[in-house]
Amino acid sequence: MAIAYPQFFGPKKVDPTLMVSSTSSISPVMLSQDELKKIAAYKAVEFIESGMVVGLGTGSTAKHAVDKIAELLHTGKLKNIIGIPTSKITHEQALSLGIPLSDLNKHPILDLSIDGADEVDPQMNLVKGRGGSLLREKMVEGASKKFIVIVDESKLVNHIGGSGLAMPVEIVPFCWEFTLKRLEMLFIEAGCVGKLRMKVGNGEEIYVTDNGNYIIDLYFKKDMGDLRAASDAILRLAGVVEHGMFIDMATTVIVAGKLGVSVTNKD
Amino acid sequence: MAIAYPQFFGPKKVDPTLMVSSTSSISPVMLSQDELKKIAAYKAVEFIESGMVVGLGTGSTAKHAVDKIAELLHTGKLKNIIGIPTSKITHEQALSLGIPLSDLNKHPILDLSIDGADEVDPQMNLVKGRGGSLLREKMVEGASKKFIVIVDESKLVNHIGGSGLAMPVEIVPFCWEFTLKRLEMLFIEAGCVGKLRMKVGNGEEIYVTDNGNYIIDLYFKKDMGDLRAASDAILRLAGVVEHGMFIDMATTVIVAGKLGVSVTNKD
Repeated sequence: MAIAYPQFFGPKKVDPTLMVSSTSSISPVMLSQDELKKIAAYKAVEFIESGMVVGLGTGSTAKHAVDKIAELLHTGKLKNIIGIPTSKITHEQALSLGIPLSDLNKHPILDLSIDGADEVDPQMNLVKGRGGSLLREKMVEGASKKFIVIVDESKLVNHIGGSGLAMPVEIVPFCWEFTLKRLEMLFIEAGCVGKLRMKVGNGEEIYVTDNGNYIIDLYFKKDMGDLRAASDAILRLAGVVEHGMFIDMATTVIVAGKLGVSVTNKD
Repeated sequence: MAIAYPQFFGPKKVDPTLMVSSTSSISPVMLSQDELKKIAAYKAVEFIESGMVVGLGTGSTAKHAVDKIAELLHTGKLKNIIGIPTSKITHEQALSLGIPLSDLNKHPILDLSIDGADEVDPQMNLVKGRGGSLLREKMVEGASKKFIVIVDESKLVNHIGGSGLAMPVEIVPFCWEFTLKRLEMLFIEAGCVGKLRMKVGNGEEIYVTDNGNYIIDLYFKKDMGDLRAASDAILRLAGVVEHGMFIDMATTVIVAGKLGVSVTNKD
């Protein structure tokens, strides 16, 4: 996978202090996906300085970053951090770890946000929100001077939708079947199929977001084309609240892979 | 006011059968605003044919249209009408009048919708939603082959926002103060001021839409410029659900004024 993304894995961009495998080793260290996520998360936390207002992401990768921030606060290596959580679940995690928290009303500009992503394309466009908190994530990360995305290499795709997994769209519950059909029609040439998200482990109960809305997961057979145009077309549909494409928002992407960790900044 | 809108009041477009004042009369009939609304509403209902699926608008003008539809159903002049209400309040009104009802899921394409508007500009762009149901109205009317707008002449403006009254934006409650500020910043050059809508008669309780969201009312000192660009900019803000500009949606505008009733179709 990494070979297809020289911009993320070019030799100049790999941090040698974080190499997790060695070409000279006969038995390279085999790291689990979760260990890769942790490596990316810890690397991102190095960008945080004392006194910063920091957006706290949601999901299995971002969770490691929140853990690490708490650890650095407790050991005194970081001071006066204010965290802005991107979901109720991250709010609870950060609260339980003793990270001082605030919100966008009090801190409308953040220094830095750190969050995972479900897909990252070569232009650093993202799909996010498979965890269900795409709207709050987009509000917080859109208000951040820097937005560091942390992923393991399995999240790299040639184009948005390219993983074959879902691109989520948050919609109002009112006449959701109608909105689902209109979303499919928008991308009929890309073979788009939409599915209403149900609760995990309970296929009969509809998943409801932190904002009381539903999620339609869109699956694409082909590239959906120009992303900005696709974004505007989705947002123009009455009934749509937000979608999971984060276009031109990431300022840094940290990828942990078998070849090491790459840190790529937006040009 | 009418003189400024020759496209709505040109002599060829005024229906002589509906003239409500006469230039030859020494004492022209002075009609109230509500009587003008009723005239526009009744004229719109003439466009309905038996068997149609009809979008039922919300507000003081649309209410007259719903009343008239029920009357024509009861007298047998209209048959097999299916109404799609644009709000809970219209649903209740139509139900109490015995109009058969359905929804967008079962009828994703409507023959015709009739609704009022808060502002109508010379290009037939609208501001709607001061009544609070802009999202459902936009869903229903956007799914209609024909969309007839009914207003009294006080609703005609040179440009959207030109009445000095509100242009509503429906937003998620989460961090609404932040979203309010971002909306103001979008239109800072137009002197935009936003206010959270409160319940009528209860200034301390926040107004909540049928979809569980809040409304920010935007007030403009100047023209906001290109409407399509303004629309996309608002919709791109994470936290915004929908706005009250209905751009290029109306197919017919019926204006009741002191000079008569004008019926203008989209070119």
